[in-house]
Amino acid sequence: MLIMGIDPGYATVGYGIISFENGKLKAVDYGSIFTEAKTPFPARLEQIYDRFEGIFGLYKVKVVSVEKLYFQNNQKTAINVSQARGVIILSAQKAGAKICEYTPLEVKMSVTGAGRASKIQIMSMVKRLLLLKEIPKPDDTADALAVAVCHAQASGIKNKILERQKGVYGRLFL
Amino acid sequence: MLIMGIDPGYATVGYGIISFENGKLKAVDYGSIFTEAKTPFPARLEQIYDRFEGIFGLYKVKVVSVEKLYFQNNQKTAINVSQARGVIILSAQKAGAKICEYTPLEVKMSVTGAGRASKIQIMSMVKRLLLLKEIPKPDDTADALAVAVCHAQASGIKNKILERQKGVYGRLFL
Repeated sequence: MLIMGIDPGYATVGYGIISFENGKLKAVDYGSIFTEAKTPFPARLEQIYDRFEGIFGLYKVKVVSVEKLYFQNNQKTAINVSQARGVIILSAQKAGAKICEYTPLEVKMSVTGAGRASKIQIMSMVKRLLLLKEIPKPDDTADALAVAVCHAQASGIKNKILERQKGVYGRLFL
Repeated sequence: MLIMGIDPGYATVGYGIISFENGKLKAVDYGSIFTEAKTPFPARLEQIYDRFEGIFGLYKVKVVSVEKLYFQNNQKTAINVSQARGVIILSAQKAGAKICEYTPLEVKMSVTGAGRASKIQIMSMVKRLLLLKEIPKPDDTADALAVAVCHAQASGIKNKILERQKGVYGRLFL
């Protein structure tokens, strides 16, 4: 089963596709989509949509996992992130994926087992769980992988992973 | 030249297509798109996108005119309206239309000539300018027509209309 996590935005959109097979999580493809500030906003939305359409064409993603949005201080940014998020959700819907939302707290809890985990602790855990050599850059990519892992954990896969990778959890938080 | 005005939303989306020919504004097609609360949000976004894709397939719309968004008190509503707006802008962009934004004040000023015009005054003016028998319902449809008229006025067509329909302006506000 392929799960895609997304960190929505309009200048940088992180995405991370993971698989869960034979009791193991694995990173399949991940990265960030960038759009330029000088490009008119509608064209940036189109670029984001087209890139996701392309990615969904390559992978049969079953679930798209995305963080719930909360207002930021900057009105314009919040509105534009929301507009981009709408376009991303549309592309996932068009691809026939199920869309699941998680709060930042749910992502933290699910990935690290602790609600107070720091950003770097979440990143480190994502790296370990997905057996990556390094924490992916930029943060948007790592955040996208975290929300993908969150869904994997939340959807009942959690116990199996815990069983296999007990050591990882043990070292960091238990 | 066809101008489409849009009043963005996710439960109700107003749209209004107007033409400007021989110095005259004319309503070509207008209405509202409704989505049901019981439908999952991603599917509502898809319904909205598909409906606009259909409308853009019927009419060669040159400009899409849409009100700028401002935060509302309800976070969730504001985020969801923004997400729907992103999808609508994407459909306009895909249709090759130019997208223009106006503030509520610009719409008022442009349609009625007065920044303090009431909603009913705006509606009445839209009805007169477009030679409609009644103010379209629901409000979302009338609002969409207003923002379409706003663009027509703002884009230099204003003087010609003023000349032809001086009486209309004169009676209400001058």
